[in-house]
Formats: sequence, C-alpha cells, structure tokens
Amino acid sequence: MKAGVRAATLGGVTDRDAPRYELYYWPGIPGRGEFVRLVLEDAGVPYVDIGRVPEAEGGGVPAILRLLAGERAGPLPFAPPALVAGDLVLWQTAHICHWLGCRLGLAPTEEGPRLAALSLELTLADLVAEAHDTHHPIAGSLYYEDQREEAARRAQRFREERLPRFLSYLERTLARNEARGGGVLVGADVTHVDLTSFQVLGGLRHAFPKACARLDPEIPRLRALRERVGARPRLAAYLASERRLAFNESGIFRHYPELDP
Amino acid sequence: MKAGVRAATLGGVTDRDAPRYELYYWPGIPGRGEFVRLVLEDAGVPYVDIGRVPEAEGGGVPAILRLLAGERAGPLPFAPPALVAGDLVLWQTAHICHWLGCRLGLAPTEEGPRLAALSLELTLADLVAEAHDTHHPIAGSLYYEDQREEAARRAQRFREERLPRFLSYLERTLARNEARGGGVLVGADVTHVDLTSFQVLGGLRHAFPKACARLDPEIPRLRALRERVGARPRLAAYLASERRLAFNESGIFRHYPELDP
Repeated sequence: MKAGVRAATLGGVTDRDAPRYELYYWPGIPGRGEFVRLVLEDAGVPYVDIGRVPEAEGGGVPAILRLLAGERAGPLPFAPPALVAGDLVLWQTAHICHWLGCRLGLAPTEEGPRLAALSLELTLADLVAEAHDTHHPIAGSLYYEDQREEAARRAQRFREERLPRFLSYLERTLARNEARGGGVLVGADVTHVDLTSFQVLGGLRHAFPKACARLDPEIPRLRALRERVGARPRLAAYLASERRLAFNESGIFRHYPELDP
Repeated sequence: MKAGVRAATLGGVTDRDAPRYELYYWPGIPGRGEFVRLVLEDAGVPYVDIGRVPEAEGGGVPAILRLLAGERAGPLPFAPPALVAGDLVLWQTAHICHWLGCRLGLAPTEEGPRLAALSLELTLADLVAEAHDTHHPIAGSLYYEDQREEAARRAQRFREERLPRFLSYLERTLARNEARGGGVLVGADVTHVDLTSFQVLGGLRHAFPKACARLDPEIPRLRALRERVGARPRLAAYLASERRLAFNESGIFRHYPELDP
C-alpha cells in the first residue's frame, strides 16, 4: 500500500520508533480530515491517507467502512476521521490533533498551556460544527435543498451572533497571549490549535465571504496568524501540492450565496 | 467561600497535594456541568460548585461571568463548564471529565484504552449536542417556542436516525469490550465514560421516553451498565442528595411531548 504515502520531508520530525500513521477519512472533501492532515504535514511526518489509496491497494471507502464495521481489534471508532498508529486507534478530530501535536512538537510542553490547547482545539471544533449546521440544520441525511428555509434562519443567527462571538473570542485569546511574544493562540510557539484556526478561517471565508469581510477589521491578530501559518515552509509546500483538497460544496464549509447575503 | 464545598467522603481518593477543584457552571440546571459533577462525586473528592455558592460569598452567576470576562490570569475559557484546579484552567466538558478521570482513578491506565476513553467521551458529547439541538435547531438565543416547527423536523430525524445509531454503537462497544469482563465501555473498570453514559441515558429517557422505550430491547448491556453505575455507593449517595439537580425544561434534555410522539 504505497500510494498515498507521504514521504518524510527533510527537516521534519525524525522518530525511528514512530508508528505508521494511517488517517481514515472520506476522500473528495477536506472535511474534518483536513485538520489532521495539517498537523501531519506541518510536522513533516509520513502518513497514509487511507481514503485516497486505491481500492485495489486496500484503501478507499471500503477500507474506511471495514474499520467502522469493527474489522480491527480494539476500540471501535464511531465516525471518521480516525487515526491508526500502530496498536492505537483514536477518533474525534480535536483529540487526534492534540495527541499528534503532543507527539510531534506541535503542542505546548508546559501543563497549563497544554491543557488549554485541547480546550481551544475543542472550541474550534464547536465552531466547525456550527458552521456545518448552517447548511444542515435539520439532518445530515437530508440534502441542503430539503432544508433551505431552516438553513436561511440558522445561517442568519450564525452570521450575526455565533460567528462574531467565536472570532472575537479568538482575537481576545491572541491578545491575552501576546505577553509570551509568539503571536499564537496558546503557549510560545505554533501549535495544532493555530493550524486548525488557519483551516477554520479559510473555511469560513469560503462559506461566508461577505460576513467575514465585515468582521475583518475586528480580528487583525487572527488574520496575521493565518498568514503566518500559511507561510510555514512545510505547510506552504503542502498547500501547493496535489494532496491539498479545495473547499467544495460537499464539505463542511459550503458557499451558498443565499446564506451569506 | 465555604458553602457548596463538598466534604471528602470517607473512602474517597486521598490526595494531600490535590488542588482545590472549582467547577464553574450555571446554577439551576444539570446541563453539561453535571457530567463533571458525576466524576468528582464518584471519586469522592471535595469541590466547590461556584455557580451555587451565594453571590454574597463570591459565587453565583457573577463569579462565572468574571471568569469568562478574563478576570483570572491564564487561558480564557470560552463557555461553562470550566474547571479551575490550582493554576490550571480547563474548559470543554469531555476534556474536563477525562482529565479528572485520569487524576482520580476513573480512567484506564493503559495507553490504548485511555485514548479510547477520550474518543468515547467526545462521542457522547456529540450525542448530547444533538439531543440539545432537537429543541434548538435554529439558535440557542431563541426560545423553543420560536423554533417549534424546525424542532419537530429535527427531533424526528434524531429519534429515527441518530438516537438508534448512537445507542447501537454504544451497545456494540460494550459487547466488544466484554472480553475484559468488566461490563464497561472501555478498559476493565468503571471510568468517566460510564458515568457520562449514565447521565446521557437518563437525560434521553427524560426527553424521549417513548423513543427510548422502543429502543430498550436492543440495548440490554447499556441498560445494565446504567443500573450498575447508579448503584455505586458514592454516586447513589450523591443522587439522593440535595446537590443533585433534576432534569428540567431549561436544560439540555427537555421533555416536550410533541417531540416524542
């Protein structure tokens, strides 16, 4: 199963005892899998993106369904993304990102900031879930077209109440953390939380370009962080690669102009 | 600030270096704070339930608002529940429960099951969020009465699709873990995950008694676990105490008969 294997980048984390990291996530959308990819790519460690490995080589959607059906011993993941690392199986995006961040030098080492990093990662996960529910307020099993009216109502509340609340919270968090000199959300160096905020902000701008443009003046630190993260060498190389999936209208962050008037 | 302090139960965890645990959560509803309380109560450690301490003694809603306004140094919690333990501040329910569980003997000690415990706790948190959104599918800032039609649609999908999916997943997880002999969701002994499942099942039965009754035959292991957890001596004592808050129609799990026909 060689296709989809990301070669270790020179200068990346070198860990001879590292397990083989296998990401299980639906192909075709960045979705929640992308938050995990950003940590792995920024750390420069090899991983297998199982959903994008050809079925003939044991990957693709059938491989994901086998994992969810319990083919593998050990705990049963509820939903993708899931990460398999040797004998370990993790699911839930924020948990995976934090665990990888702790292993791969993308989490604070001090206890207080380290715990705060998971709190922040989970707060961003809530923002992601609320952004998703703007186009699926009734059920994920229904098409958007079958819940358009409800989506319009929910999206309005999201644009006017929730989005400003989350973004101003992140901006205040950056301001409070400035004493550490890093311009990052927690601790002194870039962590998985900053990588996730990069993806969340990109997704929000894709889905709600007008609402985001209105809020831009109020989040200078957050915008600066996004630029800094996107310019990190390994991340920039990834973003320019074929591995990077664009936001699209099958994913979490969807641009429906009627939801962003 | 002595009111609200839970005296250490004889036989509980004894930790002379333990910090003072302070739970910040809205008074009057069990809500997400209750998941944290169950871990603290079952472990038998003292804690201060700040929201229920009289304002005159420095507690109540004003104390919560001061924490959220950033009065305290360190990371800024986004929303309650938050836990303050000495210099540490954590927020996000599942994270708090897992961290406390690891400290207080209510989490697996082996790495694999320990990581799975957080994945499971977060999966239960997703179920809680979906149960909440059945009565608030448009916005938390609107009354239920202002989103009743949407709630009816969302609740139907929840009862017919999501609730069976989550419950059957938990039942399968219990079945897979039976080899360990514990009758628990992860590892060999009761963990924070089992305590949370107890509260979630109770909440679901409060909100959707008819839908739950229909599913009962399919979840014998989960019902047995609920009974076992509720019979644990310290937890049973807590449930019979005045500290325990009943489910009510201001909380997460609300019984609106029209949402459970």
